[in-house]
Amino acid sequence: MKPPHQAALGRALLLTSPSLGPDVVRALERITGRPAGTARDAAPGVPVVHVGDTLPEALRTPELLWFHSVNAGTDSLLASGPWPGGALLTRTVGRMGERIAQYTLGWMLAEAQSVPEHSAQHARAQWNRLPSELVAGTTAVVHGAGRVGGAVAALLRACGVRTVGVARTARAEAPGFDAVVRAGSAEEREALSRARWVVSTLPLTGGTERFFDAPRFAAMRGATFVNAGRGATVDMLALETALHDGSVRRAVLDVLPDEPAGPAHPAWSLPRTVITSHSAGITADEDVITDFRVCWESVTEGRTPALAVDTERGY
Amino acid sequence: MKPPHQAALGRALLLTSPSLGPDVVRALERITGRPAGTARDAAPGVPVVHVGDTLPEALRTPELLWFHSVNAGTDSLLASGPWPGGALLTRTVGRMGERIAQYTLGWMLAEAQSVPEHSAQHARAQWNRLPSELVAGTTAVVHGAGRVGGAVAALLRACGVRTVGVARTARAEAPGFDAVVRAGSAEEREALSRARWVVSTLPLTGGTERFFDAPRFAAMRGATFVNAGRGATVDMLALETALHDGSVRRAVLDVLPDEPAGPAHPAWSLPRTVITSHSAGITADEDVITDFRVCWESVTEGRTPALAVDTERGY
Repeated sequence: MKPPHQAALGRALLLTSPSLGPDVVRALERITGRPAGTARDAAPGVPVVHVGDTLPEALRTPELLWFHSVNAGTDSLLASGPWPGGALLTRTVGRMGERIAQYTLGWMLAEAQSVPEHSAQHARAQWNRLPSELVAGTTAVVHGAGRVGGAVAALLRACGVRTVGVARTARAEAPGFDAVVRAGSAEEREALSRARWVVSTLPLTGGTERFFDAPRFAAMRGATFVNAGRGATVDMLALETALHDGSVRRAVLDVLPDEPAGPAHPAWSLPRTVITSHSAGITADEDVITDFRVCWESVTEGRTPALAVDTERGY
Repeated sequence: MKPPHQAALGRALLLTSPSLGPDVVRALERITGRPAGTARDAAPGVPVVHVGDTLPEALRTPELLWFHSVNAGTDSLLASGPWPGGALLTRTVGRMGERIAQYTLGWMLAEAQSVPEHSAQHARAQWNRLPSELVAGTTAVVHGAGRVGGAVAALLRACGVRTVGVARTARAEAPGFDAVVRAGSAEEREALSRARWVVSTLPLTGGTERFFDAPRFAAMRGATFVNAGRGATVDMLALETALHDGSVRRAVLDVLPDEPAGPAHPAWSLPRTVITSHSAGITADEDVITDFRVCWESVTEGRTPALAVDTERGY
């Protein structure tokens, strides 16, 4: 991924998706020093910098210099058509790591502290001491050892949780993790068998579709499974079996393979499961502005932004 | 508080409360190298080491060398009669700090991550993105800057929360805290006005009864109030007013001035409140054994244990 040529960048149009709020658009205009238009303003031969959630078909042309995604996940962008050769793709990570870490820990502690059970007891005006569990001393296996997975692991460690990362390659050291093992290895199976918590932060790529399959769930021994990554990384029938046979104790699913789920969706009927409607890793307007500004600074200095996506690899 | 004389300790009876489980009793017998009895075994002129939850009236005599409480709070022990002069009082803290820290953070994150709302939506099979709040960047005021308060503060800081401790004296530095201010000072009022969270870990002493009174609640501007200390430190009518006028946003009460609360107790009807039936700071059998062993080691070496309670001050 190379940054766009300075000359082309200088005369590029700034286009934004209709979903962007006026405050974000104004901020982007200030950063780039030019007025913002929409896809309709594109013209042959005029380079384009587009900021938004989706890339209109009409902009999948050689004129596209750079697309900045307001989301962290770029799988649907890349899946909806071939990426225009040479166009830079950057994404908004924002405080995603922090948000997903607090989401994950929040649901872990909710289970450990019997939050739903206490709330139900309160509603019945019933005084009854309930057990709680210290998460300290338990093991969490975190799939994905990148920024987000690392942020999750670092926060869990602050609660005394042992953290094992799972990545495409084993690593001697990774920030936040006590160990990082290779996906598919005997070490991963061993870690899954001892895990109290299995947390996925995996992006959706060709290699992660239905990553959580029957053998992987069968390796667990009563772990709670938290999916804060992408829904299609999970084989939902395999998860259902695992919930029924107890290899998965509980499931907290922020995402599903098919979203949004209508009231008749079978996932609502999974036992000991809560679905949180893709609320975990929201990006705030402030995140989009901050991350675009950082990318803009890199690009205008001729550097490839750290938030660039490898469009072949998918993240 | 001086440790008991070695000679008296050597010939002391080990007595335990009926509430102690057989595993704990056996462990205490091993530690002290003598069989355990009950209050009925006490005899005039024979020194006593008692381990338990309450001190029978018949043992409030000069024969009592040492009482080890299986609980962290010793207020009811001290309130139920004059303490026998010279008797050592020690307590079980166990993993209390860690437990109360995880309880506090669990309920804070449950609110920030809309855990009850997500659970309710799930029950209706309703897919609807809900807002979440990062606790990072918010301020928590923690009353009590001792072991437990310090453990709460340290964990909250790992989530990016600014922590202000409130203690009897201001301190330049205290582990876990960004600042410690004096109770009743202008700095405390200022901190309460900016707090998103107010967490009490206060013990009950003469000086803390109804500590959380109308002026203190009125100083808050929409904080969530978490009481993991003692119920009688709160003026419940003042709390009710504060919940109605919004100076307290929500309340999470592990404790009440009168426990256990029957179904007709008015606290069940407080708005935006959850009561958790004194479940936060449980001591496990393992905690009692570990802490008694540490005290025993100190005492047999002629030192005052770090877990000794100042029976005048009350903690």
